[in-house]
Amino acid sequence: MTEKVSNNMGERVSYHDSVEEMLIRIRDDGLSSVFSRWDPQEKIRCGFCLQGMSCWLCTQGPCRINEKSGADKGVCGIGPDGMAMRNMLIRNIMGAATYGHHAYEAFRTLKATGEGKTPYQITDVEKLKWFCNTVGIDTNQDIGQQAVQLAEFLDKELKVTPDDSSKMVELFAPTKRKPIWRDLNIYPAGVQHEVENSIASCLTNVDGDYVSLAKKALRLGLSTIYTAQIGLEMTQDILFGTPTPHEVNVDLGIMDPDYVNIAFNGHQPWIGVATLQKAKKSEYQEMAKAAGAKGLRIIGSIETGQELLQRFEVDDIFVGLMGNWLSIEPFLATGTVDALVMEENCSPPSIDDYAEKYQVALISVSTIIGVPGTEHNMAYYPEKADEMAEKCIQVAIENFKKRNGKIKPMVPKHVTKAIAGFSTEAVLGAIGNDLNNLVDVIAKGQIKGVVALANCSTLRNGPQDWNTVTITKELIKGDILVVAGGCGNHALEVAGLCNMDAVELAGEGLQGVCRALKIPPVLSFGTCTDTGRISMLVTALAEHLSVDIPDLPIAVTAPEWMEQKATIDALFAIAYGAYTHLSPTPFITGAPNLVKLLTEDVETLTGGKVALGDDPVKAASDIKAHIMKKRINMGLH
Amino acid sequence: MTEKVSNNMGERVSYHDSVEEMLIRIRDDGLSSVFSRWDPQEKIRCGFCLQGMSCWLCTQGPCRINEKSGADKGVCGIGPDGMAMRNMLIRNIMGAATYGHHAYEAFRTLKATGEGKTPYQITDVEKLKWFCNTVGIDTNQDIGQQAVQLAEFLDKELKVTPDDSSKMVELFAPTKRKPIWRDLNIYPAGVQHEVENSIASCLTNVDGDYVSLAKKALRLGLSTIYTAQIGLEMTQDILFGTPTPHEVNVDLGIMDPDYVNIAFNGHQPWIGVATLQKAKKSEYQEMAKAAGAKGLRIIGSIETGQELLQRFEVDDIFVGLMGNWLSIEPFLATGTVDALVMEENCSPPSIDDYAEKYQVALISVSTIIGVPGTEHNMAYYPEKADEMAEKCIQVAIENFKKRNGKIKPMVPKHVTKAIAGFSTEAVLGAIGNDLNNLVDVIAKGQIKGVVALANCSTLRNGPQDWNTVTITKELIKGDILVVAGGCGNHALEVAGLCNMDAVELAGEGLQGVCRALKIPPVLSFGTCTDTGRISMLVTALAEHLSVDIPDLPIAVTAPEWMEQKATIDALFAIAYGAYTHLSPTPFITGAPNLVKLLTEDVETLTGGKVALGDDPVKAASDIKAHIMKKRINMGLH
Repeated sequence: MTEKVSNNMGERVSYHDSVEEMLIRIRDDGLSSVFSRWDPQEKIRCGFCLQGMSCWLCTQGPCRINEKSGADKGVCGIGPDGMAMRNMLIRNIMGAATYGHHAYEAFRTLKATGEGKTPYQITDVEKLKWFCNTVGIDTNQDIGQQAVQLAEFLDKELKVTPDDSSKMVELFAPTKRKPIWRDLNIYPAGVQHEVENSIASCLTNVDGDYVSLAKKALRLGLSTIYTAQIGLEMTQDILFGTPTPHEVNVDLGIMDPDYVNIAFNGHQPWIGVATLQKAKKSEYQEMAKAAGAKGLRIIGSIETGQELLQRFEVDDIFVGLMGNWLSIEPFLATGTVDALVMEENCSPPSIDDYAEKYQVALISVSTIIGVPGTEHNMAYYPEKADEMAEKCIQVAIENFKKRNGKIKPMVPKHVTKAIAGFSTEAVLGAIGNDLNNLVDVIAKGQIKGVVALANCSTLRNGPQDWNTVTITKELIKGDILVVAGGCGNHALEVAGLCNMDAVELAGEGLQGVCRALKIPPVLSFGTCTDTGRISMLVTALAEHLSVDIPDLPIAVTAPEWMEQKATIDALFAIAYGAYTHLSPTPFITGAPNLVKLLTEDVETLTGGKVALGDDPVKAASDIKAHIMKKRINMGLH
Repeated sequence: MTEKVSNNMGERVSYHDSVEEMLIRIRDDGLSSVFSRWDPQEKIRCGFCLQGMSCWLCTQGPCRINEKSGADKGVCGIGPDGMAMRNMLIRNIMGAATYGHHAYEAFRTLKATGEGKTPYQITDVEKLKWFCNTVGIDTNQDIGQQAVQLAEFLDKELKVTPDDSSKMVELFAPTKRKPIWRDLNIYPAGVQHEVENSIASCLTNVDGDYVSLAKKALRLGLSTIYTAQIGLEMTQDILFGTPTPHEVNVDLGIMDPDYVNIAFNGHQPWIGVATLQKAKKSEYQEMAKAAGAKGLRIIGSIETGQELLQRFEVDDIFVGLMGNWLSIEPFLATGTVDALVMEENCSPPSIDDYAEKYQVALISVSTIIGVPGTEHNMAYYPEKADEMAEKCIQVAIENFKKRNGKIKPMVPKHVTKAIAGFSTEAVLGAIGNDLNNLVDVIAKGQIKGVVALANCSTLRNGPQDWNTVTITKELIKGDILVVAGGCGNHALEVAGLCNMDAVELAGEGLQGVCRALKIPPVLSFGTCTDTGRISMLVTALAEHLSVDIPDLPIAVTAPEWMEQKATIDALFAIAYGAYTHLSPTPFITGAPNLVKLLTEDVETLTGGKVALGDDPVKAASDIKAHIMKKRINMGLH
């Protein structure tokens, strides 16, 4: 096996010791992994695809653009900039629609819960009332009725067309941004409309103009955050509680083979919550014990895990988070997992080999999942959440009977503490519910600025999470507070940057703030779906100061973005007005005008821009320079 | 310039003399064209893309699958079948969403018209009443009110989720198909829901199972036709009239440089109709004359042209159809076009060179269009149709002043007659409104069967339209009635197969029927969007005989499919239960299990299947064999 990815960490392919240890078992057991499949692909990588100069849409193609060979346009006539931007918009669409799908599932869950048809409660009643009040729903009525009306309102928002206008955008977008978006013609409608409009634009022979396509991508980004993401996160808070900071356990060492272990993997916490509620009942613990186990445990896997982690205490039943998506194969190889329950990305397509080798039952609880080897497939209906959870437990217990004694467990001895559960409310709480206190420490320079890190984990620019961890260490050393979401956040939790020990790694100013407020220098803000939540905090700061987003000493970094939800989050950030660092470099380098548009010219339009760079130290330095420039513009130093 | 595509027609690249003649001018004028850009691409074509073995979705990629090189899976773990089917589903989604977008525009136009806010009328009141009656809307009310309620009903159908069920599917799907679709779990919801669900499935690490993905594609195909396409076509009939057969003129020879010529290009007839209505008024003719022209003329370009052609008489103002999408560049090169008004595919991306060289104003009347060089961009609002049409006329007249005397016109001397405007109602009318008469001629073997030809035009399998024309000639010679839609239909109209002279090319049995009914052997059924309309005729036949679709002596052929709407039409056909010939071969040949599923195994599931083959004579022979088999099964011979 040749797993060497880069020399950044010598021969390592992951920042995490637990993953490195498991990869030895995986290799010895003759299985391939994301890590081992990298090298064979590297040998036959397509240089055209890497540059965005490949199109496969129609039978006049597949086409490639290479000016030297005389192929300066596709057969249809599309040029390099149009081709690369169209490819990028297609990926943006995929991300936007997936968030739209998550939102659809959230809103129907809220509605069914309001109608009393699910095992869930309205947990955060205050947030429900606040949201209803904000959007104009009568709060002098039954809680359930409020939930139903809110769900209907939010579902309608997904479908707003240009004949109408989105109330969510009106209510949640920064005041000074709206006229700019209107002028640029990127003021968005509902995400379902924008997705359809964008797809129809990407068809062969419709939109071949990179500027037009780029503007559609920006509009789609705004639409995604305001009409889908913010509503869905607030809905999850209403249903399961608004996150509050608390200490949790992460990394593969949380696993104990003697328990029936059910892991929830993906992004949508519905069945995870329903199962956790059951697992807390003694009858289900007894069922597990009757099968020879010490009990029944719930494990958070990637983003679904984070959704649980930020809302539920870690205890003897809910034991914590295993890591991020690149850790899934190593996680399964521990031989301790009885059921992997999947509902959204990332559910890698060849874990059937692991399921067979290490006796794991694969369960799908969403129609979108199609992992080969998944024996148990359930479509999600909120009304059926209870019986779906029941089924997950049954399957896991049956699996335990087969796994126990047959599969030799191997659990790396690594468990890290993290403080999870920051939210806008939690941050405000930490600063005494007065934004002036935050403004004050920024003005004094104790905190130079704030960077939102939101992304995935990829091997393209180094070992798993190496870039994410390195850039974060650089930033906090420079007194920049990091607010993290997504698989990158799990990376930082596992790497120990989200606990109080990490305060020592921060610069002097940030150290002082962290100690005073009892917060780590990296605030775990949740998942990639929490991009909207992070923006709410930034928007609150901008409104408080009556400035526009590009004026603030903030930036965004996605130092290991991997898939299509990350790309639409990035497009949002650019439209929102943020300096947005992206690594790896997106597949657009064959398109010089497009690169210039996204890295330079767009700044004159939205105030945001893309910053490229795969060296995390250099990228952090560039971010710091950007933040210092903004501080000077604000009269700070 | 090396434009040789294949030896099927010697050195020719198009079946049509008019196109061949114009390509000489284009070459001499130093412009590139779809035809000339083919060869440079052919030299650097990607073999992986051709086989569907390339993936560009995430930064773990781009990946390629090549078992010999050890890269038997993508980095994520996806195998060849999953990769190829996911790529195909992405294309299907693009087609489905574009039909969804067209439907959205249709329904809001119907609603605004019902409210009296557009320049359109409810032209086919009987069809409105029939449709309202069918779907359960009270017809004892004001016509406008009926239109509004129908539009609202249809718009809602696009959005049906699995929590509800589609009334359009219930009402328009063949009785015997529905339980089969339910059993296969491909019974569809609304197209907007299915599109979102399918996209979320295609994200990296969600659905990597080719069978699961293929079923999603089949469901999406059904959803597209029943919840979008049929409703939108009926809506266009209600607004602009149900097509009736009448003689029209086609090919580039319809152009006269002495007129102000406005061409409507795409698929959505809104602004074309509004402009035609104005052009018929003397005041607008006088405006054109005041600019030095003989008058103002409307030209139908590709599918929008066909939408007009099948509903309006050709006269001195509306002069006919120029051809299909591969003829657009030659059309512009005639130096006779003052405005090309675009609203959907196919609007090729580098016609800006033509616009400049031959003085053509490019106008967009839809937000989805983004053709470089388009000076005039208008978002479509039904309420603004009148002023948008006004603007088109103004721009065209201004363009005429610049073009006239400056650009040397070159008009090929080719005009062909065609009978356009067949519809289910027209066919029933031709057979005395008694399906027994059709059954009778089929039973007697005068007509062996019916083939629906619906597709585009491409250079991949030979010169423009050569495959389409050749397979059609073979079929009618074998007494098979051809019902045509899409750019393939325009090909047949221009090639002279849709007029009464073509009857001589038919077999003896079909000749007799054509002469008796006064119909050509190829019935021009409209555009690619009329796939649903064609299915309504077939469904009527199946219901009349109380048989299932796969029992009928019918087939579908797409002998030159090019883009993504064609692929979703094909998926519908397979789910509908039809033998579906596709050429070129889709990009799936690297996926052996998928090829087997689509060409063999699916027949045991839906009764439909894909038939491959780029030799039109052989493909026609296979279709005839299929039809004869079905005849024998029905006890015919």
